[in-house]
Amino acid sequence: MRALIVFANPEPDSFNGRLRTVALETLGELGYETEISDLYAQRFDPVEGPQHYPSRCQPNRFNAQTEQEAAAARSCISADVRAEIEKLNRADLLILQYPMWWYSVPAILKGWLDRVLVYGSIYTTTMRYDKGRYAGRRALLSVTCGGPAGSYAADGRNGDFNLFVWPTSYTLAYIGYTILPPFASLGVAAPVTAAQITGVTKHLADCEARYRQHLLTLDSRAPLQFNKWGDWDQHGRLHGGVTVHNAFSRAHADLAQAGSAS
Amino acid sequence: MRALIVFANPEPDSFNGRLRTVALETLGELGYETEISDLYAQRFDPVEGPQHYPSRCQPNRFNAQTEQEAAAARSCISADVRAEIEKLNRADLLILQYPMWWYSVPAILKGWLDRVLVYGSIYTTTMRYDKGRYAGRRALLSVTCGGPAGSYAADGRNGDFNLFVWPTSYTLAYIGYTILPPFASLGVAAPVTAAQITGVTKHLADCEARYRQHLLTLDSRAPLQFNKWGDWDQHGRLHGGVTVHNAFSRAHADLAQAGSAS
Repeated sequence: MRALIVFANPEPDSFNGRLRTVALETLGELGYETEISDLYAQRFDPVEGPQHYPSRCQPNRFNAQTEQEAAAARSCISADVRAEIEKLNRADLLILQYPMWWYSVPAILKGWLDRVLVYGSIYTTTMRYDKGRYAGRRALLSVTCGGPAGSYAADGRNGDFNLFVWPTSYTLAYIGYTILPPFASLGVAAPVTAAQITGVTKHLADCEARYRQHLLTLDSRAPLQFNKWGDWDQHGRLHGGVTVHNAFSRAHADLAQAGSAS
Repeated sequence: MRALIVFANPEPDSFNGRLRTVALETLGELGYETEISDLYAQRFDPVEGPQHYPSRCQPNRFNAQTEQEAAAARSCISADVRAEIEKLNRADLLILQYPMWWYSVPAILKGWLDRVLVYGSIYTTTMRYDKGRYAGRRALLSVTCGGPAGSYAADGRNGDFNLFVWPTSYTLAYIGYTILPPFASLGVAAPVTAAQITGVTKHLADCEARYRQHLLTLDSRAPLQFNKWGDWDQHGRLHGGVTVHNAFSRAHADLAQAGSAS
């Protein structure tokens, strides 16, 4: 078994860096061979655009999907993207390790999705969801958030944590991955006072221990539910009688309950 | 009145470019002075990291919030970010014009948020939400999506459109903006066949006309609802008896309904 950890933090010595180490060690114990994409260390360019397509199929008007598809067909995808795709192809388990910035992924990781998930290679109009390129493989988001843990609840100031990881989860489900429950390290902002430092030190150690446990028990965790290709009609709507299965059903139910309870 | 349009598409001649033109013209008719941040044309660097802080307050360990706060306090924010902040400061209305890529904003726009919304300047732990820096000003997301319109419904293959604009909407609400209902141009993928080209040409013209109408009637549109600073307790949870007011309550209710109806 092989795992790829995509690491998107500018500071190797950050708490994200510690979680990366936890994953490397724990997965090693489980018998995984591990690989890292350290996006900052690689100086990965996250900006999708014409500069990556020296030989354009539409020289006068740049469209990302059109150029991606043509580059895939002519085997001239840029070298940095090709290297990332080769890592994905080798990995049975994909982990994205990142700090939540503005309720989303850091730009360098967003651009990794924009550029590496190439139309015509990683997905097509018929190779998606349960028929996706990486069907049968698993993906896990490990996310750190500075705000207090309680604020990421449905009735919290920051809103349900699950809402903010949904776009990335759904992106990976789109290309076929089975999505494992995300691992959230909440309340990990930099401490200020001495008392905070002591409290935070213990909290971070607890998060690391919980993450180790999360990884050791991955096989027993029910993945998130998504609808399958066959559930939708030709307009992209669910066939009658089919239940909405996605990570949001749960989040939505939680929030509706919070709204009615308060 | 002054408006700032942040434009995040690599192709000036794209449909996003046409919507930018619609906004410039329509807002001009309404008496706005307009400014553009064309992120691709500016070659805006979206990667937040140590390279932007030549004089670090913590030289050995990079933390984005810590360095942002220190740079703001010492008035040494990098010139490209300072220019964007000055544009924000001048604008009564902020429009983000972008294509939805992987259920989110393109990386170049994500990085604009990561870098320009500087901790210690644009927000602090007490200057947020209804007490935010840009309280009293308005923001609008204008988003294009390639998939068929029906697929962005609560029971659609792509899920509720409102879910994918939530992280960016909430980010702008966090720094004080009043968030206007987003404008969605759905089903705007590049046409392939001649019949598709005719159909798409009419559809795009319809989207432009709807956008013009959306802008002409902004003042009559009810903004999205968000909870206020005073609604939360010290743990970031809603005080008892306070209703959850955010863009998701509605989306969640829609999805719950879709789930129970099918």
